[in-house]
Amino acid sequence: MTLHPMMLEMSKLLGQMNGWIDKAEAHAASKGYDVNTLLHARLAPDMLPLVRQFQNACDNAKFAAAFTTGREPPSHPDTEQTFVEVRARIASVIDYLGTFTAASFEGTDAREVKRPRWEGKSMRATDYFVEQALPNFFFHLNMAYAILRHNGVELGKRDYIGQLSFRRG
Amino acid sequence: MTLHPMMLEMSKLLGQMNGWIDKAEAHAASKGYDVNTLLHARLAPDMLPLVRQFQNACDNAKFAAAFTTGREPPSHPDTEQTFVEVRARIASVIDYLGTFTAASFEGTDAREVKRPRWEGKSMRATDYFVEQALPNFFFHLNMAYAILRHNGVELGKRDYIGQLSFRRG
Repeated sequence: MTLHPMMLEMSKLLGQMNGWIDKAEAHAASKGYDVNTLLHARLAPDMLPLVRQFQNACDNAKFAAAFTTGREPPSHPDTEQTFVEVRARIASVIDYLGTFTAASFEGTDAREVKRPRWEGKSMRATDYFVEQALPNFFFHLNMAYAILRHNGVELGKRDYIGQLSFRRG
Repeated sequence: MTLHPMMLEMSKLLGQMNGWIDKAEAHAASKGYDVNTLLHARLAPDMLPLVRQFQNACDNAKFAAAFTTGREPPSHPDTEQTFVEVRARIASVIDYLGTFTAASFEGTDAREVKRPRWEGKSMRATDYFVEQALPNFFFHLNMAYAILRHNGVELGKRDYIGQLSFRRG
């Protein structure tokens, strides 16, 4: 196998976030507050607010695919201020991930990744994906979930995991 | 590649949790509270408390390795009530994961996983790992992090990501 199934899973989980936003909007409507207020919510004053958790989940999925396969990722300038804009960001990244195939991820054990802030060091592309991009993706995805849940949005594990590839036994 | 690098990453991240517990103990000592109080903390009244987040992170790593490779996992009865016991649980699962090699994960595309609550349905072992065990592992790992952070424990991203496999460029 290649890393492609992991990337498909990241793309699927980014899509799950749209369902979370649906539930946030329903919660805001039922309580009578502006849903975009939630984008400023944090779990601790020195943690990133919700909007940054969404942005960083998107970025880590994008970076995972691009840097592991030797592409330059598209730029997203982190200007979102509404859930409408967050949905557009998610859609843009899902579209981008859709341009990758299993073949894109062949040879990641031999490819090197370098990032400006690594000061000349490099990582094997597979290691970058597994040790850096994937855990960071899950971190921001889950912090977004935790912030929404902590603020009363009625999310459950099914909203997180989504559809599974079951077979009839 | 096989799923083995992903499993090594899960094992590493379980080990990171020991550092989180170190910081929780330091926080409790500096504030003068019983550290084990934190094990009952939740982000929302209908979410699982911290102790269950630790237990479920351990279980999902164990299940990922066992069910994907056709083994029966060891039982852990979820009786932990102190951080000392949580550390022992983590150590036990890390030891168990250490019994798997890359060869253990060969053929996961052809292996089927069945679980009692799936009512006769099955999943391809690779799909089970990628769609179910891994996202659940990261969910509980990150909820543990979020609960500690929300309660003032001074964790940072480095405590989460840990050491990276850098090479000199």
